[in-house]
Parts: sequence; structure tokens; C-alpha cells
Amino acid sequence: MAILGASGYSALELIKLLLRHPHVEITALTSRHSEPRPVGEVHPSLVGRLDLALENLSLEAVAERSDYIFCCLPHGASAASAAKLLPLGKKVIDLSADYRLSDPAEYAKWYGLEHVDPTNLKDAVYGLPEFYREEIRAASLIANPGCYPTSAILALAPLLEAGVIEPEGIVVDSKSGVSGGGREPKPQFHFPECNESIAAYGVGTHRHMPEIDQVLSDAAGKSVEVIFTPHLVPMDRGILSTSYAIPTGATSTEALLSLYRDFYADEPFIRVLSGLPATKHVSGTNFCDLTARVVRGRVVVLSAIDNLIKGASGAAVQNFNLMSGVSEITALS
Amino acid sequence: MAILGASGYSALELIKLLLRHPHVEITALTSRHSEPRPVGEVHPSLVGRLDLALENLSLEAVAERSDYIFCCLPHGASAASAAKLLPLGKKVIDLSADYRLSDPAEYAKWYGLEHVDPTNLKDAVYGLPEFYREEIRAASLIANPGCYPTSAILALAPLLEAGVIEPEGIVVDSKSGVSGGGREPKPQFHFPECNESIAAYGVGTHRHMPEIDQVLSDAAGKSVEVIFTPHLVPMDRGILSTSYAIPTGATSTEALLSLYRDFYADEPFIRVLSGLPATKHVSGTNFCDLTARVVRGRVVVLSAIDNLIKGASGAAVQNFNLMSGVSEITALS
Amino acid sequence: MAILGASGYSALELIKLLLRHPHVEITALTSRHSEPRPVGEVHPSLVGRLDLALENLSLEAVAERSDYIFCCLPHGASAASAAKLLPLGKKVIDLSADYRLSDPAEYAKWYGLEHVDPTNLKDAVYGLPEFYREEIRAASLIANPGCYPTSAILALAPLLEAGVIEPEGIVVDSKSGVSGGGREPKPQFHFPECNESIAAYGVGTHRHMPEIDQVLSDAAGKSVEVIFTPHLVPMDRGILSTSYAIPTGATSTEALLSLYRDFYADEPFIRVLSGLPATKHVSGTNFCDLTARVVRGRVVVLSAIDNLIKGASGAAVQNFNLMSGVSEITALS
Amino acid sequence: MAILGASGYSALELIKLLLRHPHVEITALTSRHSEPRPVGEVHPSLVGRLDLALENLSLEAVAERSDYIFCCLPHGASAASAAKLLPLGKKVIDLSADYRLSDPAEYAKWYGLEHVDPTNLKDAVYGLPEFYREEIRAASLIANPGCYPTSAILALAPLLEAGVIEPEGIVVDSKSGVSGGGREPKPQFHFPECNESIAAYGVGTHRHMPEIDQVLSDAAGKSVEVIFTPHLVPMDRGILSTSYAIPTGATSTEALLSLYRDFYADEPFIRVLSGLPATKHVSGTNFCDLTARVVRGRVVVLSAIDNLIKGASGAAVQNFNLMSGVSEITALS
Repeated sequence: MAILGASGYSALELIKLLLRHPHVEITALTSRHSEPRPVGEVHPSLVGRLDLALENLSLEAVAERSDYIFCCLPHGASAASAAKLLPLGKKVIDLSADYRLSDPAEYAKWYGLEHVDPTNLKDAVYGLPEFYREEIRAASLIANPGCYPTSAILALAPLLEAGVIEPEGIVVDSKSGVSGGGREPKPQFHFPECNESIAAYGVGTHRHMPEIDQVLSDAAGKSVEVIFTPHLVPMDRGILSTSYAIPTGATSTEALLSLYRDFYADEPFIRVLSGLPATKHVSGTNFCDLTARVVRGRVVVLSAIDNLIKGASGAAVQNFNLMSGVSEITALS
Repeated sequence: MAILGASGYSALELIKLLLRHPHVEITALTSRHSEPRPVGEVHPSLVGRLDLALENLSLEAVAERSDYIFCCLPHGASAASAAKLLPLGKKVIDLSADYRLSDPAEYAKWYGLEHVDPTNLKDAVYGLPEFYREEIRAASLIANPGCYPTSAILALAPLLEAGVIEPEGIVVDSKSGVSGGGREPKPQFHFPECNESIAAYGVGTHRHMPEIDQVLSDAAGKSVEVIFTPHLVPMDRGILSTSYAIPTGATSTEALLSLYRDFYADEPFIRVLSGLPATKHVSGTNFCDLTARVVRGRVVVLSAIDNLIKGASGAAVQNFNLMSGVSEITALS
Repeated sequence: MAILGASGYSALELIKLLLRHPHVEITALTSRHSEPRPVGEVHPSLVGRLDLALENLSLEAVAERSDYIFCCLPHGASAASAAKLLPLGKKVIDLSADYRLSDPAEYAKWYGLEHVDPTNLKDAVYGLPEFYREEIRAASLIANPGCYPTSAILALAPLLEAGVIEPEGIVVDSKSGVSGGGREPKPQFHFPECNESIAAYGVGTHRHMPEIDQVLSDAAGKSVEVIFTPHLVPMDRGILSTSYAIPTGATSTEALLSLYRDFYADEPFIRVLSGLPATKHVSGTNFCDLTARVVRGRVVVLSAIDNLIKGASGAAVQNFNLMSGVSEITALS
Repeated sequence: MAILGASGYSALELIKLLLRHPHVEITALTSRHSEPRPVGEVHPSLVGRLDLALENLSLEAVAERSDYIFCCLPHGASAASAAKLLPLGKKVIDLSADYRLSDPAEYAKWYGLEHVDPTNLKDAVYGLPEFYREEIRAASLIANPGCYPTSAILALAPLLEAGVIEPEGIVVDSKSGVSGGGREPKPQFHFPECNESIAAYGVGTHRHMPEIDQVLSDAAGKSVEVIFTPHLVPMDRGILSTSYAIPTGATSTEALLSLYRDFYADEPFIRVLSGLPATKHVSGTNFCDLTARVVRGRVVVLSAIDNLIKGASGAAVQNFNLMSGVSEITALS
């Protein structure tokens, strides 16, 4: 198993999960640093747990060491790598945004650069097992979902698919821990700036908005455009999304909960709650906890995930399990 | 100056503000404890700053010491006290919810008890200076606004008054620091339970919902019923409200900002921002920072306050300043 | 496997670890509540992961379901239970303080009550595998170490055993996350009281002080009395102990690190670092990270653990593994 | 009043304090940015509170606008500025470390550069009013103390001066909030790195160590070398120092408290507590809270300050008040 771009938070969580995976050996970790660095130097929590270095490996060298490659590179760089690995018969699980938007024009619009691999983009499968499990099993290239989209889609797609909410005017108000911003020090993530504070960011401009639209539109069978507002919460990890929608007809809290329970009856990582979810209760797990309420004729859905697990590395392992034919919950329970 | 129920967080902030007030001397602090306790024992941050004890005083004794009385008692107890103080010619600023809802039936429905002072309720003035300044100047009884309502009303009332948003379908998604829950230890406020977590609570049932409705209806000139969802954020203080509304006609971010700037041009404590507010920037101040955006045809308003200052004790001092005829910003700038 | 007193934080961590243990089935969870409660109701993070209720079971009923019993009861109650379970041939791992102090008079002095089970106290083994591994393998009753003592003993005992530090004048300055205070809401653990603050508590009076003394005296072969100061840090979990000692002769940072590396060469859960430990890097793990420095002729040792894992439940599982003959690292790596 | 280097946290606190100062007008704020920036752009909390820009002013321009200059520049740059301002007859309060160590050789050793202004260094006064009040009144150049030294000196100097503790073997174990590290984003202050963690740093190498030594030696009348260990705590502000010393003779907790109460009887900002200090209770204030205990024959002193107020900007204002002849507590109470 290889991980490209192994110095960030998603890669760290991925390594921790894979260390528990009975069918996996991690054989390559890459980074742009010219000198190899022991993994414990980059991730002190891994000292003594993995005897491997982060190396500036060529893709050929990576391909020699592994058949499955997890890409934790920045967008752009990720597709450039995948474009070379796929022809070598490798399977790629891409944690960047490069293969999430199926339309390269949308990608260019939101990410500000031309897609470097439009060919493989056509065959990429959106890696949300709850909606695309069979396609994932057969795929060579997985677009691992964004963290916010995971929380929003799991909350809203069942209702859109069932036609119980209107596709117009959906509001997704999301709150995320700071690890979602990555490991690079930036002013907005400097402890004394974001601690003891809550603020929105990227209002109406966040790149996860078109991703949510795309998958919800797929579920609804018609165009969906959400009003999406992300917020930064002073905590390490976790996303809570509070979604608001207009029901198409009379409904009730009980009816909604019943719908969710049926829809997700066989899902190992979705917990439909009667009570209210809290990010703490899913922290460190691959679970999505969710519930719904009818308030003054509106549908309110609350969904909580760990942004680094179900919102990134846990989903990646779940996808790997499906692709490789082992039990879907391996290393995740 | 007297403060009834002086052991909580709002009272502590009130004392700190009044210690800076050149026209005020604090003469009485009450609590239910049978034995007097020095204020520094109850509030260690006040050691050496105020030589006074919290005492279990009768209302008569309180009335002898002060003409203005701040009530930080629980609802029910608060109105019972005010009912006795007002006939003695005292002025009461009530920080509880007792005089906020003008309809005693609404009060009974949301607070689960009959209003103990319906007579004075008729004359109570809602203490939000930005909307009721003249009434406050003349009032003997102030219903100091709730923290969430302050953040929501300052954000939405100007738009409703101007008729630029529809009164239907307004969503108020609010996020609050933990001090909003009071000083009484409870499981949900136990550090290891709420730290590193975000969750909603009181979805569709929070008592601040009818209060928001009432004041917004007043501003709109027609009935408004908001969908209100409060959330608990792991920080000491601050409220951020993200409000969503449907515009009545074509509008733009610039038009909204312009409207706010005109509306609040003379307000000392409202800052209309081009950028996005953060609770940290209003922490410890009486400011409300706000901005608006148009996202996919919806109006999104973001407003931030310190729940203990502009959302409680700062507003109380602002009201006192208006009532007593000193400069409105005294002790608040 | 049974857990007595399963509603607290240590029990929650223990359950999570045991759910990953291939040789263990959890068969009984007890609590004082008269009505059985599903585990997911008490511990929302366990919803869907364990289909068992917390029940008010008799010790006989517990004994019927399990041969090993983890005691997470308050002190006093714990020994009362163990006293009944041991004669039935059960093995008990006690996470309370009841069997840690070998002298019942010391116990009475520090815990304010007569020891209820002095007979079994004689045979109890202090469950710190790094120092008492063989005794643990053969034991029926384990006194699982306190969290502070674990961090202090692992730091200091090797130096005392080697005679490189004086037994007099040792200072242990410890910093702990709030989960160490338990799950019961109390004023000092109320979020707005302990968040954004650091303070010492129990200076010179904390019950872990005699426990540290006892084990260090055992290592030194002579009497040790430490000056122990615990502090509360606004974080969920983790303990960092900074210990200061006078060297018996000339020494150096390198010599100390070398001594630790030799001493702990075969230990699976001790990581001797060249750099400085941080509680974050051991969070959620059974590791103790430690290092040492010589500063102006004094020895400074820094040691970090997760108070709930290596400081409680992880150690308990490690002890169980040793007692039951499975690999010591099972469910802990 | 001018502030050089006005973009950091100390400068922000200084501005907030000076805005409350009845005898002060802020007339100049400088920064290295080539373009002037409104203060509210750099410090969003100051929007609407101060109508001034941060400008890249020459020292001559600064000198024209103000007689007192607060220097919040990095070390080296600070002395270079003071060296030019003092000959113009200006009074300088330097918040950097440039004039704290009286021996230029010590400065060169710890700060790694030759002192740029050894001439004025001779006349600089260490700005700790509790020990150098009269010298401060008469000074033109103040070396404002470091944050850690303030907490340690206020705790230990009275005991050394009275001869009740030995000058050897003093341990100062300090814990600081993250704002102490400045406003520049760095990996160790990145939220997900330092949140939910505690760690020591600069063990035996921190530059505040010789500063503590120097002032304590002055108080003791003989050489003092402390073992100083700073730690980073996941909170915005506050320092707690736990100091350990060997008494010279028999002593008691009561005797120590009595000594402190006498020593600090007339000090407006020292609060000697019977209970234990917490940083929260001094947050946002110029107070130092302290207490002492005798534990197993050792003296343990606990002292708490707000690192940005008493540990930086509050002390600077206190010094300014003394120099300018206004009441010492102006703007600080």
C-alpha cells in the first residue's frame, strides 16, 4: 500500500487505520522533501509504530511497491499522478478534489485550473459507498468525497431520492474542526486567532458547494443548488451539518426518522438517532450520526462525522475494502 | 445600584462593567445563601476590586440601598421581585425572560408557569436600544433581551422593516459559547462532554424562538415565525448567528450592506463589516458585528456578539445609561 | 468479561479497547441505576457497537457471566466487590485506588476510611507491567495504577533503581486533562470555569502522592517522598509530568537517555525520545513518551501518557493480557 | 503616544488599555508594511474604536508626534530604535528583551547578537514597579519585563530578599497560553498541533532564564540560577508559575502568606490568596495572584498573571503612569 503526500493530517489518520488492517502492509510514503525522513519525525505519534521513511519517490518506484495507491496530494498534483499510475494497472483512491466534479468545466471554474486528466475523470467513481457501492467495487479510480459533502449528502440525498423535500432552497449550515484546514500554518488557523471564536468562511464560494450540488442532483434526478455556509469551530476534528429543506408534502419527525432507518438499514456506518448528534460521539470513528426534525413546517436534518475519518481517510479505507473484496468494515470497527 | 442574584456569569460581567462606571456605586448584591459571602469568594476575579458581600437581603433592604435594580434571578423569581420593587418607585432592569414576551399566554406556554406579574408586564419595554431607544429612556421596567434574540434581531429586523426579505421561512442557525448555559454544573456543560464537540440542542423548542418571533413581527408589521436552531460551541463566550431569508425582490450584497450602514449609521455598538464577523472580535465588548451576502438568490446574514455583554450585561448597562440620562456608551467603550 | 461501574470515562475507554480484543467478549456491565439502560444511552459513542445494557447486577450474577472482572467502582465499593469475587475464583483488575497502597494504615490516612479487605490487599499486585510483569502474570488481583503515578514512576523509577538520582527532594509537577476528574459534573470541571485556565489543585494533599512514594521507594530500596503538584489543563485527556531530581554524581542528557533506552529496551509501550514529549502524540494510545535533560546540574524528566489509556484502561487491558497469557499488546497496538 | 510595531498581540492589548486612559491620545502606530493600513484591518476588534492607520513611519516622524514611545519591535530592532529616540529627549518603554539583561555579554550569549545600544543599556530600568518603583519614576528608558520573569520574580523575590529560601536549586515550572508565542503563524502554534496537548519547550535554554536569574540575584544579594521549564497550554492567555524552593529554616504556609501580605501590602496589583490561583481569574487584568504552601519541607509558590497584561502591556502602562506622574492604576483598574 502506498500513500502519496503522507505528511498531512488525512495521511496520518490513513496510516493509523491501515496499521490496524490485517490485509495491508504500507510499503511507500512520499513527500516533496528531497531527503527521506522517518515517519516518526514527521508524525511523532507514529514513533515506534511504523518503520518507514517518507521519501521523494518517483511514481514508477511507487508503482513497483504497491498495487493500490492513496493520493493525499493537493488538487492538480493529484490528477497528474493518477494519470500516470492508472495506465500501469494501479488502483487509485484520490483524497483530493481532482476527480469529484464530473464536468471538467465546473472543475476549471471552481478550482481555477484546467483539469489535467479529463480522460480518467470519465471513469472515476464518487467514493461514497452508501450511494455508489457497486460502482466502487468495480472501479480503478475513486474520487474520495469531500468532508463537508459527505455530511451533507448523507443527510439530504435520502430525502431527495424519496421526493419528500423540494430541491430548491436547501440550506446547509456546516461547522467544522480546524484540522479540516490542513496542516500548513496559516493566520486563520493560528491558535490565538481561531481559539475561543466561531466564524463563517467562504460564504457562497466554498469549493465543496458544487460537489454537494452534483451528488444531490444525481439523487434527486433534477438540478439541486444548495446554499452552503461553512464555519470554523475551535476544536480539532468533527463536522456537524445542520440542513434545512422545504417538505414536498405533509411530514413529521417520526416519518423522516423512519425513512432514514429504512434507507440506511444495512449500512454499517450510519447511525440514525432519535436524539441529537454531537461530533464528539463520532470522533475517531467512521460513523455518520444523523437525525431529523420537523420545525414549523420545515425539515431540519443534523448530521455529524469525523472530518478526518468518515470525511476522508475512513471513507478511503472503506472504499479500498470494497475494491479489494475484503469485509467493508475491516480496520474501521 | 443593586444586583439581585449576583452569583452567576451575567452578574459577574455586570459588576465588572459597573466598576468602570463613573456614575455608579454598587450598594447591594443578593443571593439565596443564608450566610453573607464576600464577593471575591463567589467571584475570585473580583478579589480586591469590590468590598461588598453577597447577602440574602429582603427586597425592602435592597430598595433602601438603591434606586436602580438589576435582576439576574431565574424566571419566575425575577417577576416576583420586580412586582414588589416597582410600586416602591424603583427602576428595574430584568435580565431574566419574565417580561420579554408581551403575551402572558405565550409566556405560560413556553415557560411552563403562569406569569406572576401580568400588570407590570404591560408596561415593560424590550431593552434593545437600536429599536426601542425612546421607550427605554422613559421606562421603569426593562425586559433585557435574550442573547440569541439580540443577535438574530439586530441581523434581521432592518431587512424586515425595509421589506426586502420575506417574513416566511427565515432560518436562524445560532452558535453559542458555553457560558450561555449558566454557572450551574450540568452534564451537558461538563468539560469533557462539551469540549471538542459541537452539537445542536433545543431544536424547535428553545424559549428564545418566540422572543425572536415577537420582535421581528413588530419590525415586519406582520407575523414572523423563524426556524431557530441553537448550537453549543466549545468556547467560553460569544454567539454567531447565521440567518437565511428569501429576498422579496432583486437584491445584492452591496445593496444589503448599504441598507445596514444607513440603518445603523448612528448606532454606537453596531459595526457593519465588509468582511465576515468572528465572535473573537467582539469578545468582551458591547459590539454587534454583522455583514450580509446574497448567495444563489438567498440572503445570508452573519451577526456576532458577546453573549454576556451585548447579549446580557452590556445591554443592561446601555439601558441603564439611557434611563438615567448619562451618555449611552458610558462604561461600555 | 465484566465491567463493574461501567458509566464513567475509564469504563468507556475500556469497552472501546475490549471491542477490538479478539479473545474477549463483554458479557456484563453494571451500574447503580435500578433500571437497565442500553450501553448506547449511557455512552452515545457506543451506539450500534455493543448490544448490551448496563444492569444493576448482583456480584453472583456477574461471577456467573465472567471469569475476569474489571472494577471501575469508587474506592471502598471496589474492595467490597473484590472481596466477594475473589473467593469465587474470579480474577479482578481493580481500577480504583483500593489495593494500591500496601499498608492499610496509609490507606486509612489518605482515603479517610478503614480498608474493607485487608486480607486480599496482601496479595494484590501493583499493575505496572514495566516493573511487576511476572507478578502480574501470576496474580488474581491487580491494583491498576493511578494515572499520575504511572507518569511519574515510569519517569523516575529507572533513575532511582540505578542510583543516579538522590531519593530526597524530588519534585513531580504534573499537568492533566479534565477527564481525569471523572464524569460527575462539578463546579471545577464546569466548562466555563476550567476552559481557558490553568490551576494547581490538591497541592501537597493529593492521594496519588503516597502511591508514587511507595513504588519509588520500592525501586530505590529506600524511602522516597516526592513533592507532587497536580494541575488541571483545559483539554480532554493526557498527562504530562515534569520531574526534577538531584543527580548523585556527574551525569548528562546523553547518559540519561542511554540509561532509559537500555532500561526500557524491550518494553512495547515506552518510547524514549530525543525530542520533547507532548500529550497529543500519545493521545488514544497506550504509550508513555519520555525524555530527560540535565539543566544546571539538575535532572529534568518529561513523561507523557493518555490518562485514560496508559493511565487507566490501557494498562488494565495490558494486565489482562499478561494474566490470560495472550500477547501483551493485544488490542493496544 | 506612539507604538512601534503595532501589529502584534502585545500592541493590541496596549491599544485597548490606552483607549481607556484619560490622559493619553494615541498618535502614531507603526509597522513594516509599506502601505498604511487602518488599525481595524490589522486588528478587527478595533474597528470603529480608533481612527488611525499603521504606517511605515520614520523615527523622526514618530518623535514629532509623541513624547512617550512604546516599543513592541523584535529584539535588536527595538534597541536600534530606542538608540535614536532617546537622544531626541523621548521616553521609551521597550517591550522587547533588548534592555532587560544588564550585561551586554549575557545578552550576546542568549540572543545571539551583539547589543546595538550598550550606552543606553546602562541607564535602562527594569520595569517591575513592585521592585523598582522609584527608579521607574525617574527613568527615560524602561526595560519592560518578560512575561515568565514577571510571574517568577513576583513569586520568589520576596522570599529571597527575606532570606527564607535558599538561592540554590530553585525550580520554576511555568505554563503559558499560546498568545505568548506571538502572532506569527508557526507549526507549533497551529491550532490542531497545540490544541488538546500540553508540552514543555526550550527546556534549559529559554531566554527568560537569565532574566529571572538577574533580578532574583539582585533581590537575594547573591547569585541565583533557577531551573526554568516553560510549557505551552492550549488556551489563549495566562501564565501560571509553580516554583519550588528549599527553606533556609523552619517555616510554614501561614508564615509565608504573612510574609507576602506584608511585603505586598501597598501594591495595587498583587493579590495574596489563601486559596489557589487560576489564570482565568487574572485574565484581562493587571493582577498577579499568588499563594504559597509548605509541602514536605519544601516551599511551593503558585503565581498567576495574564501574560499580555501584567506580563506585557499592563506593566507597560503601569510604568508609563509612574513616569508621567499620573495615578499608577490609571486605565488598569
